[in-house]
Amino acid sequence: MKLHVLSKMGQRTPEPPISWLMHAALSRPKLISLAAGFTDNASLPVAEARAALTQVLRSPKTGQPALQYGITAGDTTLRQLTAEHLRKLDLGGTPCRRPKNQGRRHAVPPEIYSFERLLISSGSQQLLYMTTEALCDEGDIVLVEDPTYFVYLSILQSRGLRARAVRLERDGLDLAHLESVLQSLKRTGELWRIKMIYLVSYFQNPTGVTTSFEKKYGILKLLKKFERDTGHPIYLLEDAAYRGLRFAGRDVPSALAADGAADRVIYAGTFTKPFATGARVGYGVLPEPVFTAVKHIKGNHDFGTANLLQQLFVRALASGLYGQQVARLQKRYAHKARVMKLAIKKHFPPAVEWWEPEGGLYFWARLPRGLSSGMKSKVFSTALKNDVLYVPGEICYADDAARRKPNHEMRISFGSASEADIREGIARLGKVLRKFL
Amino acid sequence: MKLHVLSKMGQRTPEPPISWLMHAALSRPKLISLAAGFTDNASLPVAEARAALTQVLRSPKTGQPALQYGITAGDTTLRQLTAEHLRKLDLGGTPCRRPKNQGRRHAVPPEIYSFERLLISSGSQQLLYMTTEALCDEGDIVLVEDPTYFVYLSILQSRGLRARAVRLERDGLDLAHLESVLQSLKRTGELWRIKMIYLVSYFQNPTGVTTSFEKKYGILKLLKKFERDTGHPIYLLEDAAYRGLRFAGRDVPSALAADGAADRVIYAGTFTKPFATGARVGYGVLPEPVFTAVKHIKGNHDFGTANLLQQLFVRALASGLYGQQVARLQKRYAHKARVMKLAIKKHFPPAVEWWEPEGGLYFWARLPRGLSSGMKSKVFSTALKNDVLYVPGEICYADDAARRKPNHEMRISFGSASEADIREGIARLGKVLRKFL
Repeated sequence: MKLHVLSKMGQRTPEPPISWLMHAALSRPKLISLAAGFTDNASLPVAEARAALTQVLRSPKTGQPALQYGITAGDTTLRQLTAEHLRKLDLGGTPCRRPKNQGRRHAVPPEIYSFERLLISSGSQQLLYMTTEALCDEGDIVLVEDPTYFVYLSILQSRGLRARAVRLERDGLDLAHLESVLQSLKRTGELWRIKMIYLVSYFQNPTGVTTSFEKKYGILKLLKKFERDTGHPIYLLEDAAYRGLRFAGRDVPSALAADGAADRVIYAGTFTKPFATGARVGYGVLPEPVFTAVKHIKGNHDFGTANLLQQLFVRALASGLYGQQVARLQKRYAHKARVMKLAIKKHFPPAVEWWEPEGGLYFWARLPRGLSSGMKSKVFSTALKNDVLYVPGEICYADDAARRKPNHEMRISFGSASEADIREGIARLGKVLRKFL
Repeated sequence: MKLHVLSKMGQRTPEPPISWLMHAALSRPKLISLAAGFTDNASLPVAEARAALTQVLRSPKTGQPALQYGITAGDTTLRQLTAEHLRKLDLGGTPCRRPKNQGRRHAVPPEIYSFERLLISSGSQQLLYMTTEALCDEGDIVLVEDPTYFVYLSILQSRGLRARAVRLERDGLDLAHLESVLQSLKRTGELWRIKMIYLVSYFQNPTGVTTSFEKKYGILKLLKKFERDTGHPIYLLEDAAYRGLRFAGRDVPSALAADGAADRVIYAGTFTKPFATGARVGYGVLPEPVFTAVKHIKGNHDFGTANLLQQLFVRALASGLYGQQVARLQKRYAHKARVMKLAIKKHFPPAVEWWEPEGGLYFWARLPRGLSSGMKSKVFSTALKNDVLYVPGEICYADDAARRKPNHEMRISFGSASEADIREGIARLGKVLRKFL
């Protein structure tokens, strides 16, 4: 018998759909990509990073520890700075006060923002990966937004996990639909297989949707209700990767600040996205027993994120450089988003519905049902022929037999393209869309 | 029923044994640790790293790409430099010639050292982890040296894999024992569960043993012989983490240079250990289909190792800084090893057998059988009371019912301790040993 030498994981870890897109782009030098999910090169803080690293490496006393192994959970100072940064974001300087919009006021237990629950990872991506390893066995179920971050779907597929998709509204999950999904899993006796729900809660990738604090609280309440039948907790994994990139409206507290969050919310954040994606430092806040399990798993992965990068962020946070860079970036992206909005208004036919975000990198557009935007669609190939690339919405939908996978949407990014390219790219895309509508 | 919320992996990933050791050390401020497995702080290239990073970040043109995402497999220039570095190490500048000591000469296929088979990882540790993910399902068997690198044993345990231990001699595995282990697995019908053999081939952690090229070739031949009954390849995963730290004798070519290696050898190396452990850049050379599987898995872990660190090594390798630092380190460690050797000669009782390495960080000592050196032994606790710490050999042995786990050995490191501490630490340890012998 000829057996496959790769493990089940090795066999089922898919090529990222985005590689195909990037590959398609390579052969067209004049292509404008509105597909890439990162900030533009011109916004990267080269001088700032140089200054911070020169400071870290200015003397053997400060430099040697940065070039040596650290501890697995991460540098203690960075963990403390991060925990404090997060507490301020959530509670706005008022310690131990629940955010108003929860309906009633409760003291937030201060230990939620203790650095001892915080672990540094190589980008928030690694935190998502390790948390999933720590919680989910093959066949387990993770609830996801519909649509959601496609790399996370790839993690699920790779590990033989099942996704159940919950409808997404403009302010987060449809709670009634969440309840009905939970009910139906209860009926089929599969509730115990749910280990967590995964939310991209700020300027979601791909839709740009931000989950309201009320909804976070509502989700936690629902999960707790169904936990009676699972025999174990159901965690809320909040992926806040884009939180730093808000450029309009007010920040929403994380689920950590909600009542009952202490032992149920896992929060994944990053310093990378709003500063320098080449530096790969993220973090997670995790309750026990998840914290310890993830820490041990991290020991097996790499014994801890590169200390040199951690020291870069200690320096950048403590000196205020980090905050300044984020403020600059917010201004820059507010402007780029405005440019894209005006271009969309001008060039897209009225039959196309589009969502404007308050931060992050993405607009979300919906063609009329029946007009496909997928990788094999005429819209996609015509766009490519006209040298403009977008991310087809279909790749952001989990495999879930409970609904047909929508294929008429597109993620359009103002992240890496220049202003001129945003204008020209949207004009090209508009032309293509008008041809079909 | 109360179910555990953690996955099987989450439940069985153990606390690293080394944490317990470090914890024991914390409460004794005067303790000399001969346990730590890293180079000393004073040897770290602070000025060199600062110079290289300043170069990388000197202008937006060079700095922006370093602060941006790269591609998952790693920076192409770094991969090319690394592949060339490795080719030179293995073939000594003579392209496509097999090393002499193979008995017969064969042309080494040049594509073995192609950068396209090379992937950059976050330290070589991550490469070990992902390779194991790509190849092994729960219940599979990995052959390991007896003893071996204990963090790798922790990866096996975490993933529900079984280790079968093969006796280690002064020049590498006992080939006759390897054959008998393979035979016995053939008899029990479990041969198909073997996906690979894991070797730490240079100055092995923990014994300091270097595997000869003949043995690498012999292992490959044996594996191929048994492959007829497995239905799939059996890989040789060569962990060369310490290769750069040679300070005596001549370098041994890697298994990549052996006949028949092209589609069977996975080589894991690192720039971190002989330069700066805080920078975490390693690499792997992998044949298909492992390369592609690991690349996709890496995409799910973190989409690629921090580009900024990769650019640091591009600069350090291209400028010669890296080579200079490694040469300095070799000299320093030759000296520290000599200091330890003289101290051991002076202080250890003759009943203790010890092995001297030609590189790396470790001496290996064997007490007479019957005198335990384990974590719960009198020798260990007395050493601790006398403020000296070593790594008990027992933690480096896999669980393997086929033999009793030896518990009378110790790994003694000259890595992080100062010269004075090496002398004093060995004197203390000698005193303890004389008490029992």
